[in-house]
Amino acid sequence: MTELKNDTFLRALLRQPVDYTPIWIMRQAGRYLPEYRATREKAGDFMTLCTTPELACEVTLQPLERFDLDAAILFSDILTVPDAMGLGLYFSEGEGPRFKTPVRTEKQIHDLIIPEPEDQLKYVMDAVRLIRRELHGRVPLIGFAGSPWTLATYMVEGSGSKTFSLSKTLLLQEPKLAHELLGKISTAVAAYLNAQVAAGAQALMIFDTWGGNLSPHLYREFSLRYMREIVQQLKREHEGRRVPVILFTKGGGQYLSDMADTGCDALGLDWTFDIAQARKQVGQRVALQGNMDPSTLCASPDVIRSEAARVLQSFGSGSGHVFNLGHGITPDINPDHVKVLVDTVHQLSKPYHAKK
Amino acid sequence: MTELKNDTFLRALLRQPVDYTPIWIMRQAGRYLPEYRATREKAGDFMTLCTTPELACEVTLQPLERFDLDAAILFSDILTVPDAMGLGLYFSEGEGPRFKTPVRTEKQIHDLIIPEPEDQLKYVMDAVRLIRRELHGRVPLIGFAGSPWTLATYMVEGSGSKTFSLSKTLLLQEPKLAHELLGKISTAVAAYLNAQVAAGAQALMIFDTWGGNLSPHLYREFSLRYMREIVQQLKREHEGRRVPVILFTKGGGQYLSDMADTGCDALGLDWTFDIAQARKQVGQRVALQGNMDPSTLCASPDVIRSEAARVLQSFGSGSGHVFNLGHGITPDINPDHVKVLVDTVHQLSKPYHAKK
Repeated sequence: MTELKNDTFLRALLRQPVDYTPIWIMRQAGRYLPEYRATREKAGDFMTLCTTPELACEVTLQPLERFDLDAAILFSDILTVPDAMGLGLYFSEGEGPRFKTPVRTEKQIHDLIIPEPEDQLKYVMDAVRLIRRELHGRVPLIGFAGSPWTLATYMVEGSGSKTFSLSKTLLLQEPKLAHELLGKISTAVAAYLNAQVAAGAQALMIFDTWGGNLSPHLYREFSLRYMREIVQQLKREHEGRRVPVILFTKGGGQYLSDMADTGCDALGLDWTFDIAQARKQVGQRVALQGNMDPSTLCASPDVIRSEAARVLQSFGSGSGHVFNLGHGITPDINPDHVKVLVDTVHQLSKPYHAKK
Repeated sequence: MTELKNDTFLRALLRQPVDYTPIWIMRQAGRYLPEYRATREKAGDFMTLCTTPELACEVTLQPLERFDLDAAILFSDILTVPDAMGLGLYFSEGEGPRFKTPVRTEKQIHDLIIPEPEDQLKYVMDAVRLIRRELHGRVPLIGFAGSPWTLATYMVEGSGSKTFSLSKTLLLQEPKLAHELLGKISTAVAAYLNAQVAAGAQALMIFDTWGGNLSPHLYREFSLRYMREIVQQLKREHEGRRVPVILFTKGGGQYLSDMADTGCDALGLDWTFDIAQARKQVGQRVALQGNMDPSTLCASPDVIRSEAARVLQSFGSGSGHVFNLGHGITPDINPDHVKVLVDTVHQLSKPYHAKK
């Protein structure tokens, strides 16, 4: 494999010394980029973009051409796993993701298949291999998956939801069945992430978008527990390097200490929690990734610079910080503002890493 | 004025001894009730329901006929205040609330009027007076308003929002102007709440639905600060009784201690924070109101009972707890399940208030 030219991101995740704070942006390959919209149009629909390795590779690399980012992230969707488990994912214009056969009965849960990553999800592994080749070692490639609870909400509701009535009722009403479902998803996700590593992913992230919407006792029993099980099943070394794992529960500020105890290397942090406070809570256990409000990018370059400075100062000196937004970048953002952010973080972070 | 027959709710808010834990339900007069839907249809549209005191009174009293609730809450909408400030509120089917003239310029902010409650908002005060009369002292009547930040998001965006790009940009880009806007809204809200008390409201609640979506430094400067200013301007005694004030920031679990220091009497708590933990943080300063996940009401009566028992046990012994959901009840709920909840809370809470 080609030697990695910029390993700042991986080093920061492992809290090793770096020269500056690395940055990447959640959903950096996305609709805010005109070149992404062009490829998306060429593909015809979102699923074709995900399932065609050449197109997934093309959009993965697009933001790296524009910005001095310290990591690439596989272009894909967290719902590819439930799709491969037999639910039939499709995207209806304006309504977001939907499943043809949502999981509603005991029999459906029993019958769910654990997909073979190099079979039903081979298109993802092919994309990982192609992206690694095309990156030529420029920056590391992040692989990812959804958390079992987050995937379960879509699988049970059949689409996105505001209230999660059906999926929460499953937890409360049929806890044994819920555990069976979440256990199966966890097995599928662990195999999927390990296959991404084997195919070339150099860091992994687990997105728990909806864990923060649970009551604390349910979060611990039905979301955190399965993320811990996955982390424990992951292959943590590949090509002679440690493969860091990042856990991210949106709205999970109160759970950082528990999350740090799962054995992961880093925690993603949304913008509703102070990163200085977060650092105090996790201590030396894990690195932190975050946490500027994505809406900040709507403001002027001056405001973007001062808000980036605020986040850097809040984290303070030393390694263990990967700069990011607290959630995905939105389609309304001017790409020039992203450039301002990336360059500002690189420039302003150097003093925080100066050797004493 | 008629003597109050059931003051358990008011006593619990002031942490005075009670025989059982009182309960009311956010949005208890709402679409889950067939009789509400009938009145709503009779009214024609939502604004007519809000602006016709007889209809507002009718729907306010409906849930009290069905359930043994310990408080009534004025049927109204938080956006009546910005409407009276000149923005022109209307509801478009399926799209929620909208303003004809959203606040986008400095001049518009300068020109905003502070409504005279007994003039532009007289229909609300008439409703309060009528409801008080029709309640015949059965239970106390809660008045309410939106928090300045929450109202500002609708006023600036012109409608509901997922990202709050425009309103957050105002805070970051034009903080002085944002303070002017929030100061004006605070003045309007304080006058509005005081007028509700004069008209007969016996407790007040401030809904900060969107405060939890801000970064902590912005929450403190632009949301909490103005709720504190309002609390300090409120008339706290009427008809020889203290008028308790409840603050509620959805997703504000990390701010409870700061909120308790505003001088309010109680804090609303959503379901994503443990109420035992919350009680530890606020100590003897304030009472707590909450915090069952509204989705729990989708489950079976047995599950509803065990989840209610869990919340009661989590709060523990002694006064200072008003049972409620962590957010408004949703239209899909079976009213019979609400009855199960109300009766369960009354029955199971007695041991927690037994005299020693």
